This record gives sequence, C-alpha cells and structure tokens, in this order.
Amino acid sequence: MKKIPVLLLGCGGVGRHLLHHIVSCRSLHANQGIRLRVVGVCDSKCLVVVPDVFSMEFSDNFLLEVCRVKSDSLSLLTLSGSGECQVFTDSELTKKIIDTAALLNKSTGLVLVDCSASSETIGVLNRAVDLGCCVVLANKKPVTSKMEDYDTLVSHPRRIRHESTVGAGLPVIASLNRILSSGDPVHRIIGSLSGTLGYVMSQVEDGKPFSQVVKSAKTLGYTEPDPRDDLSGMDVARKALILARLLGSRLNMDSIKIESLYPGEMGPDVMSVEEFLENGVLLLDKDIQERVHKASLKGNVLRYLEIYSRCYSEQPLVIQGAGAGNDTTAAGVLADILDLQDLFP
Amino acid sequence: MKKIPVLLLGCGGVGRHLLHHIVSCRSLHANQGIRLRVVGVCDSKCLVVVPDVFSMEFSDNFLLEVCRVKSDSLSLLTLSGSGECQVFTDSELTKKIIDTAALLNKSTGLVLVDCSASSETIGVLNRAVDLGCCVVLANKKPVTSKMEDYDTLVSHPRRIRHESTVGAGLPVIASLNRILSSGDPVHRIIGSLSGTLGYVMSQVEDGKPFSQVVKSAKTLGYTEPDPRDDLSGMDVARKALILARLLGSRLNMDSIKIESLYPGEMGPDVMSVEEFLENGVLLLDKDIQERVHKASLKGNVLRYLEIYSRCYSEQPLVIQGAGAGNDTTAAGVLADILDLQDLFP
Repeated sequence: MKKIPVLLLGCGGVGRHLLHHIVSCRSLHANQGIRLRVVGVCDSKCLVVVPDVFSMEFSDNFLLEVCRVKSDSLSLLTLSGSGECQVFTDSELTKKIIDTAALLNKSTGLVLVDCSASSETIGVLNRAVDLGCCVVLANKKPVTSKMEDYDTLVSHPRRIRHESTVGAGLPVIASLNRILSSGDPVHRIIGSLSGTLGYVMSQVEDGKPFSQVVKSAKTLGYTEPDPRDDLSGMDVARKALILARLLGSRLNMDSIKIESLYPGEMGPDVMSVEEFLENGVLLLDKDIQERVHKASLKGNVLRYLEIYSRCYSEQPLVIQGAGAGNDTTAAGVLADILDLQDLFP
Repeated sequence: MKKIPVLLLGCGGVGRHLLHHIVSCRSLHANQGIRLRVVGVCDSKCLVVVPDVFSMEFSDNFLLEVCRVKSDSLSLLTLSGSGECQVFTDSELTKKIIDTAALLNKSTGLVLVDCSASSETIGVLNRAVDLGCCVVLANKKPVTSKMEDYDTLVSHPRRIRHESTVGAGLPVIASLNRILSSGDPVHRIIGSLSGTLGYVMSQVEDGKPFSQVVKSAKTLGYTEPDPRDDLSGMDVARKALILARLLGSRLNMDSIKIESLYPGEMGPDVMSVEEFLENGVLLLDKDIQERVHKASLKGNVLRYLEIYSRCYSEQPLVIQGAGAGNDTTAAGVLADILDLQDLFP
C-alpha cells in the first residue's frame, strides 16, 4: 500500500468537503493500492498535527470531528483535548508546518494542500516547494501573486497541481496541459470563468432585480463573504491570469483589465458589506438591467470554455459543466492529489 | 535530462504523425527536462532498432526518413542499408521487442506505443506489461479483446494510457479517470463516438446521397480502408466497451448491441470493398435517407460527449471538439507518453 501524507491548509467549505471525500474514498483508494494519510490540518489561527508525522495519521473519526467543529465556526483549538493531536498557534504554526515538510520530504514525501482563500499561505508553500514537497491548490492567490512567487511554486512543475483554481472540478488545466505537452500551441481561450457571475446574470436576464439576486446568491453561499469580490471581477481576473501564465505569459494582475459591476464609491474602503447590500446595490438595479439587455441583443450568452489550438482550430475544444461548488472543487483537489501518486515511494 | 525510451508499433497515419510531433517538440520537451529517445519502430512485417538500446537513439533525420518511407507505402526493410539500425522480421521481430523490453525495464524503463490497428500486438503488449514496461495505445483492439487480456494490460493501471482510443486527442479518458479517482460515481455517458459517422451523417442530413458521401469520405481518408468497419458500428462498439470497462464493467464485445448501416449480404465475407463501393452502397441510399429524416424529426443530432456523475448530475460534464484525425490522435498519444514521465528515473 502506497501511503501519501497530506497536510491541509484551510478548513472552509472546500477543505471540509475534501476531508469528507478522503474518508468516503478509503476503500476505492485501497483498491488502487493508495492510502491518503492526513498528518495535519490548519485553519487561519491553529494547526493540529499528529504526534509522530512519520508513522501516524488522524483517524477518520478525528477528521470528521474537524469537519463538525469547523462547520460550527469553532476554532481547531477545541480539539486540543482529544489526545490525538498536538496543537500549534501563531508563530509556532508556520514553523511546525515547515519542520514537518523538511522531515517528511526526504522519506515519505508530503502533499501540502491549500484550500484556504488567503494570501498568507504563500510563504509556507514556497518553503515547502523548496524542500521538495508537492503542492495542490484550490486557493488562487498563490498562483496569482507576483511572478517571483509563481516561479518558485512551479519550479518543479510535476510537483504542483491546481486544477480547482479554474472551473472547480472541470478538467480545464489538465486538458490544457495535455494540449501543451503535445506541442499543440494554444492561441485563444474564451470562457465564462465565474460560476457566481453566471448565476447572477442568468437570473437578471430572467427579469429579476440585480440587488435581489445578489442578496439571495449570498444567502445560498454562492458568493464570497463579501459579494463585491465576485462583482468586481477580481475572481475572473485571477482565473484569466492563471490560464495566461500556464500558456507561458509572464503577466501580473495589473495587466488584466476588468470592468467592475459597482462603482468605486461603493467599494470595500468606502462602505461595509452590510451597507452595500442594504443600500448600495439597490442603486445599481437599473444600470445592470440595461447592460444585460444590451448584451443580450448582441447574441447568446457564453456558458462554457473554448480552447483554440492547432488541433482544435476550426472546432475548438469545449469543456462545459458545473464549474462551481464546494463538492466539485474538493473532488478536483482530490483528483489532483491522486495524480501525484507516482512521485511517492 | 530525463530520458524516456520509446518503441513504436505501427507507422500508419497516427504513428507517422507521432514521430513528426516528437521531432518538432524537441526544444519544448527539453525545456521540461525531458527527451524522448526512440529506440525502435515497427510496421506489420519489420522492426528497425538501434544497435545498442541502452545508450543509442534514432536521429531525427532517421525518424523523418521512416515517415517518408512509410508514407510512400514502402517497407521499413528499405532502411536496412542506413547503418543506423538493425532489422528484424518474422519470428525474430517479436522476440527482439520482448528482449528489448526485458533489457530496458529494469534500468531505463520503456514505453511501448501501439499506433497500429492490429490485434496481433496483444501478445507482445501483455509480455511487456508483465516485464514492467509502460504501454500507450491508440489501437483499440488490445483494450477490447477478451477480459483476460484486458486484465493483464491494466494490471498496473499507472503504467498504461490509452486516451486516443476514444475521441482522438479529446481529454475524455483523462477526465473520466479524474472523476473516478475523486470517488465521484459516473452513472451515465452519452456521446457521439464516431467522427467518421458524424461526418457521413451530417452530409446525408444536408441532402447528399449516402453512397456519394461514403465514397468521398474514403477518398478524404476519413474512413478505415474498408469503410464497412465504420458503417457496421464496430468502431463505436469498441469505444463504448472501452468506456464501460473504465467504469468497472466486465463486459465483452458481444455484450454491445450495434445496428449496422448495411445488411449482412453486403458484408466483407460476401463482397469485396470495390464491389461494395461500386454497387452495394448505391442500394442503401433510399433507406438511409429515410432513417436520417425520421431521426431528425425526433430532435437534434448529438455531436458531443456528456458524462453524468454525482458532481455533474444536473449539468453534465460536456467535452466537445475535433475527435478524429491523425494529427489530433497522435497529439493525444504524445500527451499520454509525457504523462508517464514520473515513472522514469
């Protein structure tokens, strides 16, 4: 049985779904001769880790307990009494992750999985890559940071996977990498890169007021905690940058032009999320309705991703499907981890 | 530089395109730290191999000469005077391939690539897999043979790739494997599995006589040498069986129901290809026209592949694009070879 040690950063919706998937796939993976050995889990403030990272792993019960604690919005500190883990916080947290990476990479290997939405993981990810560990990302920030960070992260391209940063579980990056490795030059990618905006806009097309749709999308968990992260186009810009860098462009975020759906005077520096949702967004209804109407006159709405290359010049490669959601995103992360298996002893 | 030894079976359209792609991707692969070292090439009657499989490889000039010889429909024997290769025929041919596999697998590894359309490669592929070699197939026959052969071929699932057996270069199998490895159960696949039949039928829908379309499709190189291989539905049945087996079904070809486009009295046992094209196919025009008309009344024609799973239940994963052609198929084979790189020292 091949054992793949996993250390998870981030236990929001995606991270919790990943832990659930890992537990429910035990027998499937065993049939493939694989066992994912979760040695540590980390939220924004606290790391829980097995007492001996060489030989131990968290039990499935413990992993499910982590999920329960985090879905109740509690801290991982709550688990400190369980006896199954050691707990690290503050400056000790980063040090312990790097020590673990240094210890494991030479013997068992380690996959550092980032399911957070934070840019604070970049330092520890870079160190882990330097130490020879593998990295799997659902977090877009590390691969959309400055070129220097990107170059470090992809310095061993076979040891990093980040399928779920674009189109959730949809095999967009895997397909692009196949095309690129066969020497088929990609010259154009067209796509609807935000499941959230896709949902919001199709509701507006159906005649619902923008303000109402944004509020219900937030209630349904389809948006970021601050919906303006989606409405500003930043999320789409990050995905565009990730695809551009995959194709070899040495661009930064400031090269990506985006058109925000709200004006500067409604930005996060000026008004709170509550104020935006209660007052600001109502003022946008008329303008958005007009823009959506105008766009629909020009033709159909895009709901998929097209890749144009030499092989796919007249008929592009089209990939379409549910490109959002924690379940699908976590499934993409899990497939990425399994895809690294040949690098483990 | 990581070197991946390759031995190619079959130098028809796909095999020749593969050799061209390998040569034109030299600098791309070098940037990734990879060199594909072609140690042997084999057609149906003759194997040419480098004098020392451990250290030597065919030059790019020699590989392009192989392509020229084969596109002129000559035998590889023509190359025996070049000095760059040893030549083996008949019973020596199989023995030499197996000896090479046995020699290389313990030191450098070997990818045996099957771009033929023959069932005669099954024996040598099975032996190579037993010896620990990797296998990449564009040839559908080895994976649609009896279950015993299939079980041997996939006994080390990480060492076999056969993306190009379904949908040419389209990432169908890679996407399916990602879905399966993340524990997302696939419950339904719907698709248009024959680029050839897709072409023929859309021409008939446009009002052209079936007989004329079949003849021009053959002239354009879109069909098998005997177009009845496509028209019988055997090619589609093979792809359906490959997908079913990937999903875990232990089925054989006789479980796949197909509806032939020509009657038994026009079969290969009864009339020659020439007779079929000159006389037989003309008799089918009226019947096919009626069936196409009837089908079109029921709704739209399917031109893509849909995968339904837990994650893709309401919105299936749709993959669409140019799913036929030697260039695209060879690109898929090359991506498969590169995907095996972590197994090489």
